[in-house]
Amino acid sequence: MNKDNIQPLKGFRDFQPQDAFSRQEVFAKIRSSFMKYGFLPMETPALEYKEILTGKSGEDSDKLLYAFRDRGERDVAMRYDLTVPLARFYSNYQSDLPLPFKRFQIAPVWRADKPQKGRYREFTQCDVDVVGTSSVLSDAEVIACLADTLFSLGISDVLIKVNNRKVLNALIMQAGIPVEKSNDSIRIIDKLDKIGETGVRAELALSGLTQAMQDKLFALLKTDVRDMAEAKELIELSDLLKLMQVKNFQIDLSLARGFDYYTGTIFEIVMSNAPQYGSIAGGGRYDNLIGMFAGQQVPAVGGSIGIDRLMAAIAELDLLKFEMKSGVLICNLDRELETTYLKLAGDLRKDGIRVDLYYEHGRLEKQLKYAHKKNINYAVMIGTDEMKTNQITVKNLSTGKQTQLSQSDLSAFLKQA
Amino acid sequence: MNKDNIQPLKGFRDFQPQDAFSRQEVFAKIRSSFMKYGFLPMETPALEYKEILTGKSGEDSDKLLYAFRDRGERDVAMRYDLTVPLARFYSNYQSDLPLPFKRFQIAPVWRADKPQKGRYREFTQCDVDVVGTSSVLSDAEVIACLADTLFSLGISDVLIKVNNRKVLNALIMQAGIPVEKSNDSIRIIDKLDKIGETGVRAELALSGLTQAMQDKLFALLKTDVRDMAEAKELIELSDLLKLMQVKNFQIDLSLARGFDYYTGTIFEIVMSNAPQYGSIAGGGRYDNLIGMFAGQQVPAVGGSIGIDRLMAAIAELDLLKFEMKSGVLICNLDRELETTYLKLAGDLRKDGIRVDLYYEHGRLEKQLKYAHKKNINYAVMIGTDEMKTNQITVKNLSTGKQTQLSQSDLSAFLKQA
Repeated sequence: MNKDNIQPLKGFRDFQPQDAFSRQEVFAKIRSSFMKYGFLPMETPALEYKEILTGKSGEDSDKLLYAFRDRGERDVAMRYDLTVPLARFYSNYQSDLPLPFKRFQIAPVWRADKPQKGRYREFTQCDVDVVGTSSVLSDAEVIACLADTLFSLGISDVLIKVNNRKVLNALIMQAGIPVEKSNDSIRIIDKLDKIGETGVRAELALSGLTQAMQDKLFALLKTDVRDMAEAKELIELSDLLKLMQVKNFQIDLSLARGFDYYTGTIFEIVMSNAPQYGSIAGGGRYDNLIGMFAGQQVPAVGGSIGIDRLMAAIAELDLLKFEMKSGVLICNLDRELETTYLKLAGDLRKDGIRVDLYYEHGRLEKQLKYAHKKNINYAVMIGTDEMKTNQITVKNLSTGKQTQLSQSDLSAFLKQA
Repeated sequence: MNKDNIQPLKGFRDFQPQDAFSRQEVFAKIRSSFMKYGFLPMETPALEYKEILTGKSGEDSDKLLYAFRDRGERDVAMRYDLTVPLARFYSNYQSDLPLPFKRFQIAPVWRADKPQKGRYREFTQCDVDVVGTSSVLSDAEVIACLADTLFSLGISDVLIKVNNRKVLNALIMQAGIPVEKSNDSIRIIDKLDKIGETGVRAELALSGLTQAMQDKLFALLKTDVRDMAEAKELIELSDLLKLMQVKNFQIDLSLARGFDYYTGTIFEIVMSNAPQYGSIAGGGRYDNLIGMFAGQQVPAVGGSIGIDRLMAAIAELDLLKFEMKSGVLICNLDRELETTYLKLAGDLRKDGIRVDLYYEHGRLEKQLKYAHKKNINYAVMIGTDEMKTNQITVKNLSTGKQTQLSQSDLSAFLKQA
C-alpha cells in the first residue's frame, strides 16, 4: 500500500495521546457539570433509518448525510446531529421517561460537508435539552448550565447574547417584510457580526427587500423591547438569568441563529477575549421538532457546546491545562532485579499511581527518552548499588533533581509531588 | 410514519438514562485502570478507507463490514475493530510515538453480523495493546492490567486461562496433523469447553484427522509443558504472573482462541461464578498484524474486555452497583418563591450537588413522581409556611422521613446523606 492510504480520510481526525487525553478530560468535566443541573445521560446508535434522519430540515441536510443501503437492503445513514435521534428516542420511550425529560448526550456526528479550518466531517456534539415543558425557567436553566459548564473549563470571560424568535418575527413584520421572505431575512440578519450593517443591507436588497424596509428594520432593531407584547418571554428570561446570577448576558435583537426550527428563545455564547472563534455554545427553543414522529407538538429547549472551537481556544489561550502527566517510570536496569521492579509497580498501582515499567532492560538513556516522550514526571532507578543500601533513586524529570529514598517512602513521595 | 420506524435499527441499541449512566461509569473506571498501567488514550475515526479495513483477516470479516461509496466516490467502511485502525495509526505516527507504544481505546465498532442474544451490530470495545516489544513482560502486564481492571469493577472471582500458540502448534505437529489442517484444528480445539471431547473429536474427524491423530493430540494436551522447548515463553509468563501476584491463572493447553493472527501468548478470563457468560476478556500476542501497512514485522500484544457480557454479568450477579442517585429535587410550590428556589439551586450546585428544580409550580404529588422516576434521593419543600419560620423541609424519598432544617444547613445535610 502507498503512504497516502495510512492517513485518516479527509475531514476525519486521529487523536494522539495528549490530545485524546485532553478531550476526554473536557468531556468528563462537561458530563459532570450537565449532571449537576439534573440532565441525565442517554445514548442512541450511530446508524439510523435514513427516513428518520431526513425528517428535519429537508434537502440541505440530506445532502450532508452519510447514507447507504445496508446488506439487509435497508436505507440507513450515520447520524447528522443528536436532536433528531432525540426526537425518535422521545417518541419511542415517552411513557418510561421522567417528564419533562432532561437529557444530555456527548457523541460524535457525521456530515459529508466540505472540510475547512475548524470544520470536520466527524465531530463531537455536547448537547443538553429539556423536552416537554414551555416554562421559560427551562430556557434559563439551559443557558445557566452551559455558562457554568464553560466556567468549569476555565472559560469565564464570555458574552451571552439572548433573543427570541417571536420578537424577531414581530420586528420583521413591523418592518413590512413579506412573510415569505422572513426566514431569508433572519438568516441574513444573523450575519450582522460578520459582515456589518452594509453587508447585511446589501444581502437584504439582493433578497428583494426595499430600502424602506431595511431602514425600518434597522430602526426597529434598536427598539426597547419592554414596549413589545411579543417580548414577554424574553423579558422573563432576562429577569430569571439575573436572579440566577448568570453574568455577562445581554439582549441582542440582531441575534438570529440561522436554523429555521427555532420558535422562541435563542442564544449564543462567545468568548469576549477570543471572538475570532465565533460562538462556542448556542441553542434555543424549538417547539415543533421533537413531536414530529409522534404527530403532536412537544415543546423543547436545548443548547450545545462546540467542542472543537472550545479545544482550540483552550489550547491557544492557555486556559485550563489537561497535561497528561503520567506518574512514574520504573527503569529496568538489571534483569536480576525484575522481581523487585514488579513488586514495586504493583504496590504503587495499588496506591492509585500511574506506573510504567520499562519492558526491556538496557541503556538508561533510552529509557529516560521514553519517559520524556510520555511526559512522565519521575523515573525510579534501582540497580545493584541501591539494592545493597536498600535505597532507591527518584529523578524528577522536569528539574533533573535526584532524591534518595527508602522504597517504602516512595508512594508517599510521589503522591505529594 | 409508522411505529416501527421509531425503533433503533435491528442489532442497534438505545440506552435509557440508568443504563447509559452505568456504562459511562464502567468506562470511566476502565479508563482509569488502564492509565494506571501506563496505557495512553488515542482515538481514530469511525470511518476508514475500506481498503485499510479489509487488510486483516480476509473475506470473513469483509462480509461483516458496513461498507459504502461516499459522495467523493471513495470506498469507505465503518471500523470493524480497533486493532486494524491501530495498525494504520502506528504506521502513520510511529516516529512521534513513545516506543513501545502502550495505548488503550474504548470505542464503538460496527459489524453487519446476525444479531442474537448478547451480540449486537454496534458494540463497544475496550482494548489495551503494547506495540513494539517482544518482551514477555508486556504479555504479563496486559493480563495483569485486565485482571486488575475487572477487580476494580467488583469482578474478582475469575479464572485466567493462558496458553501459547507456539506450544499449540508444536503439539499439533507432534500429533502428526498436516500443516494445512493446523488452523482448522486450532479452531476446533477451541470449542472443547463448549462441545466436550466427543464433540471436538467428531469435528476433527470431519476435517480429515485420523483416529490416531486425535488420540495423539488429546494425549499431548496433557503434556507437562516444562519438558517442551516451545514452552519457554509460556513458562516465563507463568512465572511473571506469579511474581505480579496475579491470582487464579492456569495454563490450559486446550485454550486456542479462534483467530488466525495470534502468534504467541493467548489468554482468556472467565467468571468462575458465571461461566455462562463465556470469556469476558481475552487477547494475546500477534506479531504479524501491526506491521502490515509498514511492510515490516512489529511485535504486539493486547487484550480486550467484552463490555456487553460484563454489563450483563454485573447486573445479573448484583456486583458493583452504578445507581444513578441524582441529588435533590427542589419542589416548585409557589411561583412567588421562585427567587428562593433559584438561589438555593445555585448554592447547592456550587457545592457540587446535583439539583433538579421543578419547572412548573403545581401539584406536589406530580413533582414527587418526577423525582421518583429520576431516582432522586431527596425532595426539598419550601412553601410560605417554611418561609415564615425560615425553615425548609427535606424529605428522604426512599424512607419517607421528613426533616426540618435551616436553609444554610441543607448542603451539609445532603452531602452527609
